[in-house]
Amino acid sequence: MTVDTIHWEGSRPGFARIIDQTLLPTETKLLDLKTVEQMFDAIKRLAVRGAPAIGVAAGFGVLLGIQAHADKQADDVLGRTKETCAWLARARPTAVNLFWALERMQARATRDHAAKKSGKEIVDGLFDEAQRIWREDGEICRKIGAIGAELLKDGATVLTHCNAGALATADYGTALAPIYVARDQGKTIKVFADETRPLLQGARLTAWELFESKIDVTLITDSMAGRVMFEGRIDAVFVGADRIAKNGDTANKIGTYSVAVLAKEHGIPFYVCAPLSTFDEKIAHGDQIPIEERGAEEITEGFGKRTAPVGVKVYNPAFDVTPARLIRGIITEVGIIERPTTARVEAALKKGGRL
Amino acid sequence: MTVDTIHWEGSRPGFARIIDQTLLPTETKLLDLKTVEQMFDAIKRLAVRGAPAIGVAAGFGVLLGIQAHADKQADDVLGRTKETCAWLARARPTAVNLFWALERMQARATRDHAAKKSGKEIVDGLFDEAQRIWREDGEICRKIGAIGAELLKDGATVLTHCNAGALATADYGTALAPIYVARDQGKTIKVFADETRPLLQGARLTAWELFESKIDVTLITDSMAGRVMFEGRIDAVFVGADRIAKNGDTANKIGTYSVAVLAKEHGIPFYVCAPLSTFDEKIAHGDQIPIEERGAEEITEGFGKRTAPVGVKVYNPAFDVTPARLIRGIITEVGIIERPTTARVEAALKKGGRL
Repeated sequence: MTVDTIHWEGSRPGFARIIDQTLLPTETKLLDLKTVEQMFDAIKRLAVRGAPAIGVAAGFGVLLGIQAHADKQADDVLGRTKETCAWLARARPTAVNLFWALERMQARATRDHAAKKSGKEIVDGLFDEAQRIWREDGEICRKIGAIGAELLKDGATVLTHCNAGALATADYGTALAPIYVARDQGKTIKVFADETRPLLQGARLTAWELFESKIDVTLITDSMAGRVMFEGRIDAVFVGADRIAKNGDTANKIGTYSVAVLAKEHGIPFYVCAPLSTFDEKIAHGDQIPIEERGAEEITEGFGKRTAPVGVKVYNPAFDVTPARLIRGIITEVGIIERPTTARVEAALKKGGRL
Repeated sequence: MTVDTIHWEGSRPGFARIIDQTLLPTETKLLDLKTVEQMFDAIKRLAVRGAPAIGVAAGFGVLLGIQAHADKQADDVLGRTKETCAWLARARPTAVNLFWALERMQARATRDHAAKKSGKEIVDGLFDEAQRIWREDGEICRKIGAIGAELLKDGATVLTHCNAGALATADYGTALAPIYVARDQGKTIKVFADETRPLLQGARLTAWELFESKIDVTLITDSMAGRVMFEGRIDAVFVGADRIAKNGDTANKIGTYSVAVLAKEHGIPFYVCAPLSTFDEKIAHGDQIPIEERGAEEITEGFGKRTAPVGVKVYNPAFDVTPARLIRGIITEVGIIERPTTARVEAALKKGGRL
């Protein structure tokens, strides 16, 4: 039992059903997206967010654009597929998984077209590919969850930061997957969720999805993580990752680094949960990861109401980098990279066929 | 040049002029409080806040209640003083400095009455006492500021948490006093201010008063303190204190402990700035300091808008305790208690006549 962020409903023609994340946590509304324009809009306005979930949404978006054209010539179907992919790519120009999924869809159509398949067969292939993207994402979540759940004893309490949960993927999430799997194994797991200023993904999304899934979750401000560790309440920290360097240095939501330092101070194991696709082989160390700075208003008027003096300087880095030396392990779909080093990351990437 | 939180205007009859802190940071409005009822209301609704400033407000409040009665008999003046003090004490039943100042005012009237002074002389004495409370608070701020400023080189950058500034006192504050004094000495000092969730005293008050005082201040969320330290931007941390145990363990606004751990990790000196009156000689260690828990709504709807699911559990400790071992020094009006221990705290309390 967990929230169902995105799935394909019906067969053909069908539609994508998503949770409108812009209304969380106060309203749970399902959106049925029946046209590619509706999917474009949903991605653009963050009704669906989280790197893996965006990839799945992109695949389904292509289907919405192409499903009515199975009776067309192969050339026409391929041309429409390319146009649809090019257009969908503009919905969120910084979302790497969006491009990755669209390239995968386009490559499938191109491959099937080159193999002299018919228009209908190319559309069949696209349906298969989109469902694969969705299914593979779920499988990766379950693998990370199963591996991470072994680390959690019955009665354990986990602290997490930001949202790397079901709402960011098509299944159990990454950082929250071990919690859901442990729950499925009959263990009682408690969670402390940092609210994660400035954008409050912890309060709005993590607290919501765990609460909906009947998991014992307690919301705290980011400034309270140290106190709850000091009080001996936390057994492990699980967080997600936006990008991991080849030596294991991990970029994730701002505040993750502080949590890692606090975990070290209290002797609490700090785990990053991420699929192998999060590793950037071109980046040797974390200091080469560019850190996006975002607008001041997220801090000065993040809740609709101005809470800081007009004109005051603000520093708003969206991410920070946690050095590998603070990470007890990176939990991937091919196993845990214990106390990550470049050699150990390379070994995992090889095992996963990524090197 | 700093903000003027509270002072007495005119001689007799006169009035108290305060900044209405409930309107900050978006509106700067001075309130002229001409009756004791107005002062009661200002204390109650937090128009004036911060332990030292509340003590000063209490003294001025007694004056507002008594200044029209200097022509009365000594017995009558003493009776009215006692009544006024008893009533003002109800404005904020948990504010220790409120009671301390009212007891001091009442003791002065009682002493002068016992010395057979006239009604007018007793009122004269109360005026003297209230001005002393105000002046002494300013002197303590300046002493802490002068001692702390010696630690700041020209060009230094300080990180602070919550508000222990001019807005909490009748002068330069405690944690911010070294910054104001260093500025007066011609040094250029930069400040990073944690916004301090849940109640945002850093964003609403610290950022405001430093910005108004033309000091280079940058606002960050609490979760960014680790990152700015990691980037090498911070030379020292200065924070205030709500209560200090005899061994130097320090209770202060929630989040202070995390900042102390982060400072240690980065080799940045962490200083507590507090008058000797903050020490509680009856408390040997920090774990004996009770931690107030506050309402969930400060976290779930802290900005007027609900930002967490209805019904979710919340943990909201108002304070945390920073162990003495993380504190490089406690800056008091009688000097710095370096790497505090019970013996060193006792020595400082003796020096200040408190033991």
